[in-house]
Amino acid sequence: MAREDFRFWFGFRVRYSEIDGQGIVFNAHYLTYFDTAITEYFRTLGHDYKAECVASGCDFHTVKSLVEYRAPIAFDELVDVGVKAGRLGRSSIRFDLEIQGRASQSGDDDLRAMGEIVWVHTDQTTHRATPLPEKLVAKLTEFEGADIVAG
Amino acid sequence: MAREDFRFWFGFRVRYSEIDGQGIVFNAHYLTYFDTAITEYFRTLGHDYKAECVASGCDFHTVKSLVEYRAPIAFDELVDVGVKAGRLGRSSIRFDLEIQGRASQSGDDDLRAMGEIVWVHTDQTTHRATPLPEKLVAKLTEFEGADIVAG
Amino acid sequence: MAREDFRFWFGFRVRYSEIDGQGIVFNAHYLTYFDTAITEYFRTLGHDYKAECVASGCDFHTVKSLVEYRAPIAFDELVDVGVKAGRLGRSSIRFDLEIQGRASQSGDDDLRAMGEIVWVHTDQTTHRATPLPEKLVAKLTEFEGADIVAG
Amino acid sequence: MAREDFRFWFGFRVRYSEIDGQGIVFNAHYLTYFDTAITEYFRTLGHDYKAECVASGCDFHTVKSLVEYRAPIAFDELVDVGVKAGRLGRSSIRFDLEIQGRASQSGDDDLRAMGEIVWVHTDQTTHRATPLPEKLVAKLTEFEGADIVAG
Repeated sequence: MAREDFRFWFGFRVRYSEIDGQGIVFNAHYLTYFDTAITEYFRTLGHDYKAECVASGCDFHTVKSLVEYRAPIAFDELVDVGVKAGRLGRSSIRFDLEIQGRASQSGDDDLRAMGEIVWVHTDQTTHRATPLPEKLVAKLTEFEGADIVAG
Repeated sequence: MAREDFRFWFGFRVRYSEIDGQGIVFNAHYLTYFDTAITEYFRTLGHDYKAECVASGCDFHTVKSLVEYRAPIAFDELVDVGVKAGRLGRSSIRFDLEIQGRASQSGDDDLRAMGEIVWVHTDQTTHRATPLPEKLVAKLTEFEGADIVAG
Repeated sequence: MAREDFRFWFGFRVRYSEIDGQGIVFNAHYLTYFDTAITEYFRTLGHDYKAECVASGCDFHTVKSLVEYRAPIAFDELVDVGVKAGRLGRSSIRFDLEIQGRASQSGDDDLRAMGEIVWVHTDQTTHRATPLPEKLVAKLTEFEGADIVAG
Repeated sequence: MAREDFRFWFGFRVRYSEIDGQGIVFNAHYLTYFDTAITEYFRTLGHDYKAECVASGCDFHTVKSLVEYRAPIAFDELVDVGVKAGRLGRSSIRFDLEIQGRASQSGDDDLRAMGEIVWVHTDQTTHRATPLPEKLVAKLTEFEGADIVAG
């Protein structure tokens, strides 16, 4: 994918606490970046999924995370995380993600990592997967297009 | 203080994820080490304070943390954290802590850091400080001596 | 101290990864917030202390950190960290810090934590404390006033 | 895979700092667990890859990480991470990993997560992939069997 494949980007600066002994961002922190960017993605969509969860007795569980590291990220760098709900199942959302350095804001590709996070909507009483809320599906398809719904 | 001032020591190995760009343990992780060692201290005392908390509707809040860093800690080092309830107030516990390198196990001083953590026992409904449970005070004074109770 | 005692504030939003089982920011992360805010303070001063360090063969070591926790911080909150070089010794800097919630931007006090971080300027070859660079002292006293220099 | 598919297991206890607002281990920390377990795997093999790296001017970069989360992990749980070099390429190692709860020590399956980490051996000067050291390949095939080498 490329920069134009994402309608949503979340920018932030790398913290010193995230650097390891090689002087680059430690591999586990990419998942924290992804998680933080997904929170901002929902804010942009105007969907308060945490409030909805409390009201409905459901919540999301992460069932898969994948990171492909392409180029290191240094201390104090400004990076952008692209987020896109790429596929909706009956009870699952697959997020596609990408991290780009700031050179990408001028149109150059500056890819640092790509990844995928899958969430499953779960009933907190029965611990079983339960269909995604209709309101959420409506927001996501409005933003990303109807073709993200699994056929 | 010195190694003999602590009856309880918790040993563990430094993880690569805890190292920063200087190649030494990042300063914030010392508080995680302290917190983890306090959990083990309570286990040794045979006091399940988390279960007690749920039962009583109370919990502990950290109100102060202090670290004095003396010598750096490197990746993969084995270190020991000394923990001691140093003073009990009506609703508070002050823990005294120390981190020593393994050379200290042979009797040499190998001090890396000293610190202090203060917890306050709090009613989760009123959010007010509430007296320490008697059972906990009994366990702590049995282990550390009656003179830790504030006069 | 109060909001007007700091000329520099760094604002950011709490990440989900920073929340613990009590649903509030875990105590160790306050030191990461402090460290990140100090980096931004130096950026505002126009002093690239990391580049200076490499050039001079010196670096700063954290020798003390203190946090006094006053009120919890929740997931997704916007908070501001105030930073001030409060006292300069021959080779040390004491930073005074404060965390305020956003209500404080309207003039209300919304204090969450106060703290102190002390750095010592160290020669990386001899591992001894060495005087603060004059250029840095000049920048800090220009910003905070000459009375921060220890008499 | 199952418990018997791994010759190496690394056991440890979950820290309070690793728990999130849902009361379970936050998803990013699984990668820290994997990284820590891989370090212990090399210790067991008697291969000090960090010392070798310094000597050879090479190092490993993580190029892929994958976690499939099957059942949550709670505060204070004892868990075991299985590690196995599952496939060796010319310059890459794929580690297969699994996290099991302690019930698995009695022969029951108590699977919490499965995953995969891929490292590439890189020349630190040219930043290009470079063949795995022969000594390392010998240690890994001795421990896991010759069939892990890609045909």
